[in-house]
Amino acid sequence: MKIMGKVISRIEKLNDISQSKKLDAFIFCSASSVKYFSGYFFYFEYGVSPFHLLPSTLMVKPGQDTSLILADNEMGQSITVFSGIKVIPYESYAYEKQPDPTSNMLSGICSFIIKNKITRAKIGIEISGFPFVIAKSLKNSFPELECIDISPEIAGLKSVKDEDEIASIRKACVLADIGQEAVLKYAKVGMTELELFSLAHRDMENAAGFRIPLMADLSSGAGTNSGGGMPSNKKIEPDDLILSDFTPCLQGYWGDSCNTIAVGRPTEIQKETFKRVKEALEIGIQTVRPSVHASEVDRLMRAHVGLYPHHGGHGVGTLYHEAPRIVSYNQELLKPGMVIALEPAAYKETYGIRLEHLVLVTDTGSETLTRFQHQFEI
Amino acid sequence: MKIMGKVISRIEKLNDISQSKKLDAFIFCSASSVKYFSGYFFYFEYGVSPFHLLPSTLMVKPGQDTSLILADNEMGQSITVFSGIKVIPYESYAYEKQPDPTSNMLSGICSFIIKNKITRAKIGIEISGFPFVIAKSLKNSFPELECIDISPEIAGLKSVKDEDEIASIRKACVLADIGQEAVLKYAKVGMTELELFSLAHRDMENAAGFRIPLMADLSSGAGTNSGGGMPSNKKIEPDDLILSDFTPCLQGYWGDSCNTIAVGRPTEIQKETFKRVKEALEIGIQTVRPSVHASEVDRLMRAHVGLYPHHGGHGVGTLYHEAPRIVSYNQELLKPGMVIALEPAAYKETYGIRLEHLVLVTDTGSETLTRFQHQFEI
Repeated sequence: MKIMGKVISRIEKLNDISQSKKLDAFIFCSASSVKYFSGYFFYFEYGVSPFHLLPSTLMVKPGQDTSLILADNEMGQSITVFSGIKVIPYESYAYEKQPDPTSNMLSGICSFIIKNKITRAKIGIEISGFPFVIAKSLKNSFPELECIDISPEIAGLKSVKDEDEIASIRKACVLADIGQEAVLKYAKVGMTELELFSLAHRDMENAAGFRIPLMADLSSGAGTNSGGGMPSNKKIEPDDLILSDFTPCLQGYWGDSCNTIAVGRPTEIQKETFKRVKEALEIGIQTVRPSVHASEVDRLMRAHVGLYPHHGGHGVGTLYHEAPRIVSYNQELLKPGMVIALEPAAYKETYGIRLEHLVLVTDTGSETLTRFQHQFEI
Repeated sequence: MKIMGKVISRIEKLNDISQSKKLDAFIFCSASSVKYFSGYFFYFEYGVSPFHLLPSTLMVKPGQDTSLILADNEMGQSITVFSGIKVIPYESYAYEKQPDPTSNMLSGICSFIIKNKITRAKIGIEISGFPFVIAKSLKNSFPELECIDISPEIAGLKSVKDEDEIASIRKACVLADIGQEAVLKYAKVGMTELELFSLAHRDMENAAGFRIPLMADLSSGAGTNSGGGMPSNKKIEPDDLILSDFTPCLQGYWGDSCNTIAVGRPTEIQKETFKRVKEALEIGIQTVRPSVHASEVDRLMRAHVGLYPHHGGHGVGTLYHEAPRIVSYNQELLKPGMVIALEPAAYKETYGIRLEHLVLVTDTGSETLTRFQHQFEI
């Protein structure tokens, strides 16, 4: 197990929520919040494990005890947590007897509550991913314990990144750049979308040195007109555009990026459309600065390029889509430390073009974190 | 949306559970059970979506109404469900207003309950993956509705496969075979584990024509001595063994396979160890037939090869590890239609060897579904 070198203050950020909502403790069950508050990343590409309902549950009694109740069959991996966080493994895998990971996890949670004398407390939770078995067990064991949903407050906290988070996102962006550069390098007529995808994914994983979960649109030809889709065995044809939206997850932090390229000779109209979308993205980036409304960034991009049937952008962090949303209804003001993907687009009858960069809101404006060039012709 | 051509009788299998447990209806939330009963497969490699807590919830009033409450942003994918199942989409993605997928999903669930007049019913659920928000909403709206855990009964049902399931698992096994053949074909000194993994994964995805979630151990050299681990940028060296355990998921059904190969010249002891493990696997396969205890298969493999610190095998279906477990405590009798991975192993100080096939219990014995050869020297 690897302990990060310095104490991270994200747990301390809970103090305000604790006071304003009169909470005594917190239970975090989502992979995103566990990563955010503890540093622990669970590799999620295999879906639900038969050996645990949750790989980990983070219990927080602010200023007193922060414990990660962790499935012991995840301990074999090299895991990283912030210093000051206790790791309490529970037996999850067994072969000489029936495994009972859920009961063991519940025991760990209940022990924390008893030990920290919060049996009659008010506990902050994120209701959406909260498992019924935990709620039921708490109610049975501690009938006076009350759970309060603090999802909006946690989303607000997460929307402003600290320096360590920005460093993590920068690394994820390097992988996104490698993927986009691979598309420019390898794309050619006759290969399938899947073959191109495999090369891009390989280059990203080789650079990281381990497997990288990768959300990806990679579509070519008419498939680009709906904004993308997963790679298929469709062959790339001479006049195709290729739309590649790569969203890699590096140890719990996501990057995001999109490019659209022409493998052959694009039409004048396609070139003009690409130029307009690129200008819209540039307008978005130039608009991003503290105290601008999120909606304003969205409005100005759309005003330049026309309508497209999706958001103009979104926050990125331990989730690939989080606050602040760059949409017309969002009157939130941007703040330094927010990390925002901007992705204006134009979808026509036979093709679509979307271009995306990930930008950091700085004290005076913005810094573009993804570094690849939006290049149309190869 | 694609409707499968014939009515599948898996929903009818719930009648027995309905009668024995006195249940009026069922709610299935796990991806595995939704796939099993409805045919709907959710691509899970990206983890939790910000646009739905659950992509789908399957509501069943036996003999009357089976409805899949489905996030509409999943409808864009080409989805498949069995005939007779109603698909009821709920709004999940929105950009002109705040999306509220959880409330919309809950509305869909409550509408089903009202429409089918089961507001005072007993409803079977699988408690482990059941979300607190659904339980809370049901309790608020229908205080006389009662939820009963039927996880063991559902696990029992799933352990015996019907013909369509066996056909699905056969297809997943073809992918596993392609992966194992790729290792034999491409493995060479100097390449990294990740590079080899990428080629094997590529061949599997090319054969399928779309992305394939792939749980995989791929380790080389001393890394094999603990049974595997994810591929890294470690280079394959002249005297390395390579252990490759490939568990691909093809549209909701898993395959499973493991091979261990020597890239250079194995030692006589390694050859002898490989031979023993291969014999143990053969003994396991020969032992599999109806009415044999699961524990007996485990015992005979261990008796031949010695102890190894994991199960001897496990069922495979819509989960990569399900009933029946091939372990010493499991006195369950094997039945025709069960699909079982057998994976005896030997772990030494500096290397490990594990060999695995997936077998179907037939009326008279077994059929090996994975077809690749366990070949040690290349």
